Amino acid sequence: MTLRVIGLDELRSAVTPELVFDAVRAALIAHSEGRTQVPLPMVLDFPTASGDCHVKAGYVDGSPHFTVKIASTFASVNNGLMLVVDATTGEPAAVLADEGRLTAWRTAAAGALITDAMAPADGEEVLILGTGDQARLQAIWLTHLRPQVSFQVWGRRPDAVAQLVETLQSTGIQARPVTESAAPCVITTTPATAPLPIELFSGALHITGVGTDMPGKGELPPELFAGVTVATDDHAQCLDHGDFGNAVRAGVIADDVDLSVGAVLRDGFSRRTGRSVADLTGLGVQDAATASAVIAALAE
Amino acid sequence: MTLRVIGLDELRSAVTPELVFDAVRAALIAHSEGRTQVPLPMVLDFPTASGDCHVKAGYVDGSPHFTVKIASTFASVNNGLMLVVDATTGEPAAVLADEGRLTAWRTAAAGALITDAMAPADGEEVLILGTGDQARLQAIWLTHLRPQVSFQVWGRRPDAVAQLVETLQSTGIQARPVTESAAPCVITTTPATAPLPIELFSGALHITGVGTDMPGKGELPPELFAGVTVATDDHAQCLDHGDFGNAVRAGVIADDVDLSVGAVLRDGFSRRTGRSVADLTGLGVQDAATASAVIAALAE
Repeated sequence: MTLRVIGLDELRSAVTPELVFDAVRAALIAHSEGRTQVPLPMVLDFPTASGDCHVKAGYVDGSPHFTVKIASTFASVNNGLMLVVDATTGEPAAVLADEGRLTAWRTAAAGALITDAMAPADGEEVLILGTGDQARLQAIWLTHLRPQVSFQVWGRRPDAVAQLVETLQSTGIQARPVTESAAPCVITTTPATAPLPIELFSGALHITGVGTDMPGKGELPPELFAGVTVATDDHAQCLDHGDFGNAVRAGVIADDVDLSVGAVLRDGFSRRTGRSVADLTGLGVQDAATASAVIAALAE
Repeated sequence: MTLRVIGLDELRSAVTPELVFDAVRAALIAHSEGRTQVPLPMVLDFPTASGDCHVKAGYVDGSPHFTVKIASTFASVNNGLMLVVDATTGEPAAVLADEGRLTAWRTAAAGALITDAMAPADGEEVLILGTGDQARLQAIWLTHLRPQVSFQVWGRRPDAVAQLVETLQSTGIQARPVTESAAPCVITTTPATAPLPIELFSGALHITGVGTDMPGKGELPPELFAGVTVATDDHAQCLDHGDFGNAVRAGVIADDVDLSVGAVLRDGFSRRTGRSVADLTGLGVQDAATASAVIAALAE
């Protein structure tokens, strides 16, 4: 048996933002319409190595492949790969040795898509909470959809904030450290296990959270959920370990009021009143759809 | 990133029954002592392709690796691979492109170990239910531990029974199609979704079941569990989708009476009275321990 291993350089040659946006949008819509399989993720913990590993699987009905993806973070270093399997024979088709980048890109794409769909159309200021890889990517990918947006950056370490601001500016993106002025849109990208300072959200009409992806994490103060419109990428997964679930367990919001992110992407969103929150925990179907699109692009 | 892909020929050169027996025994004992991580498996179904895929992960505390394993069956053909990951860095270490054989061997090893531990010492006749790959392997691997055993084979298709009998005989194993004489030990290896004929178990003092490995399957008539001693490879997993769980849901046995297979392997088993049943659903730690042992052997 020969198993094709596709390395990161080859993947980079095939992946475009459009490819990932299209794949992720289609996957989230299919998921909201019940045309997917997304088993609950598996998590392994390696506390002595400051590590954890998530395993996610996904399938969009009728696709040529399904995927099983591992994404690990050890001592703050991300790694992982996607295993692509033929959905008609069960034969392993390829290993995408992406070192975790496809997960990073599909997460950024989902965040940008739902932020663009739900944030106020005239909200030209976006506050990013966090200074890591996903903070940078959320800014870059949202800029593809809303080129006029400028970013404020908040983090616990001023040097990390300055570094991210500089990195974004170097790619032509308007960015500065957070000021007192409250932004109408906030994107949270931290690995926080306790709520971030509530004053950061004081001006927020829309919040997109991408950091709360496993049990024990939580970025958004539960009280933010009072009276909001919530969209979840997967109801059960967000209830199990997303910020939505944390707010439900805090008694702030009922467990059955969430819209699905896919339905919002398909139908659009009209704000009636108050704040909106999109809770993204990350779905195996995003991986599956992205992997299939990459393989199709490489075959061309 | 270079990812080592180890094919089946290379795996065969390193794997011995002793290696698999030792790894599986140690993994099951570690699991019974709480020294493992075994997330609940993921299952994907592909009804139009007569396929399903199981994803299992496992880690034995202190091991150099953890594994994520996919095992698929499409149109009765098994396939799969094991992804071996460094447990100190999260880096993918190797892909064991075993086409499902390591899973088959570790399943056979676990069945043989617990059958040898629990079946009557003088039970020289063993009845195998099923005629597939795992039926053959259970006979071959048990013969390593109990060379004097002779086998009867039962299956729904007489030609498949004759074929398996011939195959076993050609490797020097005593085998014949099932007769009226009831065997004191029965090993069930079928993909049955409804109980097998109860008369097949009429003489059984011990039953080992390895076929019921996902929701919807069930080989053993629930009434067989009345008053028996039960050993499960994992309490939660067997309760969720093993024959033990089916019997609990049928009201035949309480949900908290099972011994752990690992404890039986460690401490031995003395039959007091009545029948014993070992319910094996297959654990990710068996994969992890086997994969680590294979990699160590290949490094020598």
